[in-house]
Amino acid sequence: MIRGNDPILLTPGPLTTSLATKQAMLRDWGSWDAAFNGITLSICRDLVDIVGGGDDYVCVPMQGSGTFSVEAAVGNVVPRNGRVLVPNNGAYCARIVKICRYLGRDVVDLPVPEDQPTTAAIVDAALAADPTITHVAQVHCETGAGILNDLPGIAQVCAKRGKGLIVDAMSSFAAIEIDARATPFDALVAASGKCLEGVPGMGFVIVKKSVLEASAGNSHSLALDLYDQYVYMQKTTQWRYTPPTHVVAALRAAIDQFKEEGGQPARGARYAANCAALVEGMAALGFRPFLRPEVQAPIIVTFHAPADPAYDFKRFYAAVRERGYILYPGKLTQVETFRVGCIGAIDANEMRNVVSAVGETLKDLGIREIGSARPRKAA
Amino acid sequence: MIRGNDPILLTPGPLTTSLATKQAMLRDWGSWDAAFNGITLSICRDLVDIVGGGDDYVCVPMQGSGTFSVEAAVGNVVPRNGRVLVPNNGAYCARIVKICRYLGRDVVDLPVPEDQPTTAAIVDAALAADPTITHVAQVHCETGAGILNDLPGIAQVCAKRGKGLIVDAMSSFAAIEIDARATPFDALVAASGKCLEGVPGMGFVIVKKSVLEASAGNSHSLALDLYDQYVYMQKTTQWRYTPPTHVVAALRAAIDQFKEEGGQPARGARYAANCAALVEGMAALGFRPFLRPEVQAPIIVTFHAPADPAYDFKRFYAAVRERGYILYPGKLTQVETFRVGCIGAIDANEMRNVVSAVGETLKDLGIREIGSARPRKAA
Repeated sequence: MIRGNDPILLTPGPLTTSLATKQAMLRDWGSWDAAFNGITLSICRDLVDIVGGGDDYVCVPMQGSGTFSVEAAVGNVVPRNGRVLVPNNGAYCARIVKICRYLGRDVVDLPVPEDQPTTAAIVDAALAADPTITHVAQVHCETGAGILNDLPGIAQVCAKRGKGLIVDAMSSFAAIEIDARATPFDALVAASGKCLEGVPGMGFVIVKKSVLEASAGNSHSLALDLYDQYVYMQKTTQWRYTPPTHVVAALRAAIDQFKEEGGQPARGARYAANCAALVEGMAALGFRPFLRPEVQAPIIVTFHAPADPAYDFKRFYAAVRERGYILYPGKLTQVETFRVGCIGAIDANEMRNVVSAVGETLKDLGIREIGSARPRKAA
Repeated sequence: MIRGNDPILLTPGPLTTSLATKQAMLRDWGSWDAAFNGITLSICRDLVDIVGGGDDYVCVPMQGSGTFSVEAAVGNVVPRNGRVLVPNNGAYCARIVKICRYLGRDVVDLPVPEDQPTTAAIVDAALAADPTITHVAQVHCETGAGILNDLPGIAQVCAKRGKGLIVDAMSSFAAIEIDARATPFDALVAASGKCLEGVPGMGFVIVKKSVLEASAGNSHSLALDLYDQYVYMQKTTQWRYTPPTHVVAALRAAIDQFKEEGGQPARGARYAANCAALVEGMAALGFRPFLRPEVQAPIIVTFHAPADPAYDFKRFYAAVRERGYILYPGKLTQVETFRVGCIGAIDANEMRNVVSAVGETLKDLGIREIGSARPRKAA
């Protein structure tokens, strides 16, 4: 079912999942039933284990997309009089700034160039300059460009200065190492439909138990009240409101496959091999990645769009899709780009196939000049 | 797959879905892709049609459980200085009161006995007594007890007095007639996993276009900002944040089956037949419904728990589950009860089977005295 007629998704999620994961959705589960609640519990335990959270951290699942969980984390972890530093090198950082403004939390929007990683030094300087900052909200892998920010260094700076840290690990969790013992955080957010290779429909927050327990009354929203969800689950083993039962069952199956594959090191290695095969193949066609290799996360690669006037993203997208691959548009403001994801239930062979599909598309559409970048067209 | 090993869900959702609906989840969809966005669009069009909303109403889907959509509706439709009347005859009414308090919207919590429907006269009197009320939030079928409130009458009162009306039609939509021409409302909320017989994971708000367009800036939450979701969808055809793609695909399949069955009249008739078969069979065993028949909605039936000291809900639940049926606990505060749902991809024959399962369970557990109600045990 996943090969053949269905195109492979080379996007930052939803992504191509295994047939076993999808087949886990062929059953209906009662949300009050112990069999289902055991699944939720086992998922939460496994997710805490992935970051080595031990007994200091708990995992609270949350209905909705990953953004719902990011908002829940900010709304619960940051007190109403808190002040949040957001080092901003892309669209997902900008979204956190927006969330803070909706929630009436003071926010310091710190611009970082979108082709540069946020470093410990950048955060340290910002905290030194403004001691009223209480929390840092850091995107780990910013898929706007696909860049890897220095989370371990930033976590150390926050610990040293006694600041809270909220990590948006949406597109890195389970693929790039995060160990809570070396990289301490208050809360870390990810979702079912990213590198865990489940289907989309729920997020989760791995949060320091002491921080969560002190967060009662902070939330601006009943639905997104992480503390309330946690307390209710502790008491009843159930979700407060109807869980996306099939999505949860699929995530259980996906995590089983993740463990069988060898956990984060194995998954990270597969994605790195995917990324290398993609970049190498695309280079042979003349495509240049937007980022320097040393800051490129093996999650999604941004390529400069061909300079050839025959190139138009929509036509290019449609022609590559015809050949079985779904690409992703660029999300940068200054440069015309497109993106190709390296994640999902796919391997390096699939990446070589997409390169072939791109090569044939270039010929078909008469796109000859690839090399030099051109500025982004006005929207 | 759905019969045999898997128990039938007799709950107010999640419920037992058809195999065709679940099989629609065996594909992965790109959230940027036109094929997927066409599905979303067609679903929204069909949902507006179900209530005869014509061009005056639009449907905005929202990630998360139905409660997320209720909160989104309240947060968007009621301005920050609005005042909401909630006629309260059950747990889902109480939840709306709680949402208003979280969102800082003034709320009038009007108690109505849980075995009595909210009527037009009750709402009219409350609006007459307090002219500062701007909106009424009305649960259509309150599944706490399973009662049907007089939505058409209440809508007429709101129209006459110029008050906004938000309808929580979570468990009635698609089964009980709601026609926006005769029963005008500002916003109506339901979800994928109820009488449409999809899987849980998304809700939706059918909202008067003029009301939605005037709601910019009202929302307390980015994730739950209905207006922002609408504007983005109008512009791009896409959801703002990752949609639960498999849940959406399953809902498309479920709505196709709903239309094939004959739409709301046919679905309502099937559920009414389910409800009648259940009540009749349970009566033969000595069980008495909590509600009078004339206010009982054909969605879920609350039965008085057996008076026999041998009865314990958890043991009773487990024994009936062994026989293939998942019941639901009672949700009333004063009387010991349990609930049996009549909705899902099931027919009257299934209801006769669950009655047999209950009958055998009574024998097995030595529960003899059924008839007289007893007060609810302290939790």
